[in-house]
Amino acid sequence: MLNLGGPESAKDVSPFLERLFADSTVIRIPFGLGKYIGKIRGPAKVQKQYDEIGGGSPIRKWTETQGKLMMENIEKNHPEVIQKYGPFHVVPGFRYSEPLCDETLKNLIQNQKENGLENIVLFSQYPQWSCSTVGNSVREALKVIEKLNFPLENVHIIDRWYRNPKYLEALTNILFEDIKKNFSSEELKESIILFSAHSLPVDFIQQGDPYSLEIGTTANLIMDKLVKKLQEENLIKNNDIPFRVCWQSKVGFNSWLKPNTEEALEFYKSQFKNVILSPLGFVQDHLETLYELDLEYIKSNEKNYKKIIRARSLNDHPEFIEALEQLLVDSLTNKYNLQSYPTKNFQIRCPECFCKNDCAHLTNYFNKTQKQEQL
Amino acid sequence: MLNLGGPESAKDVSPFLERLFADSTVIRIPFGLGKYIGKIRGPAKVQKQYDEIGGGSPIRKWTETQGKLMMENIEKNHPEVIQKYGPFHVVPGFRYSEPLCDETLKNLIQNQKENGLENIVLFSQYPQWSCSTVGNSVREALKVIEKLNFPLENVHIIDRWYRNPKYLEALTNILFEDIKKNFSSEELKESIILFSAHSLPVDFIQQGDPYSLEIGTTANLIMDKLVKKLQEENLIKNNDIPFRVCWQSKVGFNSWLKPNTEEALEFYKSQFKNVILSPLGFVQDHLETLYELDLEYIKSNEKNYKKIIRARSLNDHPEFIEALEQLLVDSLTNKYNLQSYPTKNFQIRCPECFCKNDCAHLTNYFNKTQKQEQL
Repeated sequence: MLNLGGPESAKDVSPFLERLFADSTVIRIPFGLGKYIGKIRGPAKVQKQYDEIGGGSPIRKWTETQGKLMMENIEKNHPEVIQKYGPFHVVPGFRYSEPLCDETLKNLIQNQKENGLENIVLFSQYPQWSCSTVGNSVREALKVIEKLNFPLENVHIIDRWYRNPKYLEALTNILFEDIKKNFSSEELKESIILFSAHSLPVDFIQQGDPYSLEIGTTANLIMDKLVKKLQEENLIKNNDIPFRVCWQSKVGFNSWLKPNTEEALEFYKSQFKNVILSPLGFVQDHLETLYELDLEYIKSNEKNYKKIIRARSLNDHPEFIEALEQLLVDSLTNKYNLQSYPTKNFQIRCPECFCKNDCAHLTNYFNKTQKQEQL
Repeated sequence: MLNLGGPESAKDVSPFLERLFADSTVIRIPFGLGKYIGKIRGPAKVQKQYDEIGGGSPIRKWTETQGKLMMENIEKNHPEVIQKYGPFHVVPGFRYSEPLCDETLKNLIQNQKENGLENIVLFSQYPQWSCSTVGNSVREALKVIEKLNFPLENVHIIDRWYRNPKYLEALTNILFEDIKKNFSSEELKESIILFSAHSLPVDFIQQGDPYSLEIGTTANLIMDKLVKKLQEENLIKNNDIPFRVCWQSKVGFNSWLKPNTEEALEFYKSQFKNVILSPLGFVQDHLETLYELDLEYIKSNEKNYKKIIRARSLNDHPEFIEALEQLLVDSLTNKYNLQSYPTKNFQIRCPECFCKNDCAHLTNYFNKTQKQEQL
């Protein structure tokens, strides 16, 4: 279950930041200075933020819970998958914190005989594709897998699933439940929904990274479903409800995707009495929801809005677990459909890609498996 | 029927460019220099391009045809609307070419008694919202309407309709028909779909203009429907088909949305044998489809691809006319639904809006009509 990860405790903060800043495919600081910056800057400030949300990131805890619940569902609903592909090792594979994806893969592959490893599913926990997240994780994983000569045809990749109906249903239901619990029909007339996703440097977008378009699509698909549900419950009449996509968590001095969530909250206070923040892109709580949204943005806007709430994260929501279940089963049994994995878009690079060799390698992988599929 | 327009003949090119470059809400050239640049630069080059597509832009012809066909449908299917709101004057209202929206509105309102004008529908012919297109057109129209004291409660606005099912169906069917006509199942395995939309300066996107996200959503919604249709016809098996959104028609030196369509065509020639260009955002043929896509990009890539085609524009496609019909009828009869008009998003400004007074005016308009609606 691929993700960038997050430090679990105080001692993990520095290594996490160092790995992150040393990754030149994400942090585009010239002259290889990134890793030094990661050492010098930030750890104290970031440590303080983690302290305020309980000492560390819950991303490992949630990923493990999601994996466990997903497998319970599969055992119940798809015993044939367990029989054919089991037993399963379901483990987080993080890019910058433990358990590190490359080390986990190395251990699993090197002890292949003992643990009976036959197939590997690289399951992106980012529903939307970005070269800096999914691309980054899959590129690193494939390097290890190829180096250790694990057969590529036994590697399954789930690259993006932002149009997956069950994922959209889970997000919509959470948002709907949280709105219904907190707002009357009258209050909704003076409310705005802000979808808040992690920002990305503009140069990624300009190279053709589809991230922002996939986030925008997810937000729009949720709105279609949400409006129907709010109408059915007579919470809104005759009409739509205003929404915007905003971007949070910019770091550094480069130009990142805007509008900034914080600035949007400041801007809309003159026009709306209530605001519903819906975190988009991540599938569990993390520093960005628990610290940035809850402790920074919401606290500082409590006097500006009558009500300001954040919709819950997906975490262990039963419909989200069903989405994970479906994604894994479809990937293993090659039930290609609209939400096929890997998607055909996985095989194409950004038209102005600048991580040349690494991304060409990814394309190459796809072409190999595609040939195999045609046999 | 609001649009930016286009010169119909040689003599219209200069006035068109002058109006365009003088519009400081779109062309952000400092010191009011834009209008002089419009006079000096470009006319000869642009004239040559119009010469090559038959002397002028077909945008007026198509808009008039679309209006005529839309009214024929309404007469047939909604006689009650004709009875209640007819007779209709259905006229293009262009921003930079004749018939100019402000002049048309002035004439209609000043001769109100003679022509029996009771309601005005400002019908955006841009399915996706941008502050520089729909916002720009509606702002200008409302200024005239208010100045001449036409009652605001009798003004209907159709601001965006990129999620309208009939519009999406029309786009999908055209793309499907053109793919089916030109490609075999084997050929589709080596094909990519490039959705090409008009680019926009990045500073618009960074202020929170939802244009690129609405374009991305349209492309994704079409792909969902298209893949189903291609599977049903056994043109693709088991899987998806790769696609990307690209941006065309950049002008000037500022940073615009990328990847550029031309550069994407160059990039993908090593990986794909065939390419299907689908123009997105406009609803009829114009310089960007007939000159840029057909005569520039396709001609120069004929040797790079085995097959390179452009999907037809919406023009007079029957399903598109049905979309227009539905949009107009719903707007007049206040049948608010998921595709309600004006959408609630019409009332909100971009979080980092810099056309302050003009956009605040738009918001103000909405709040007035909304109050009226609640009575």
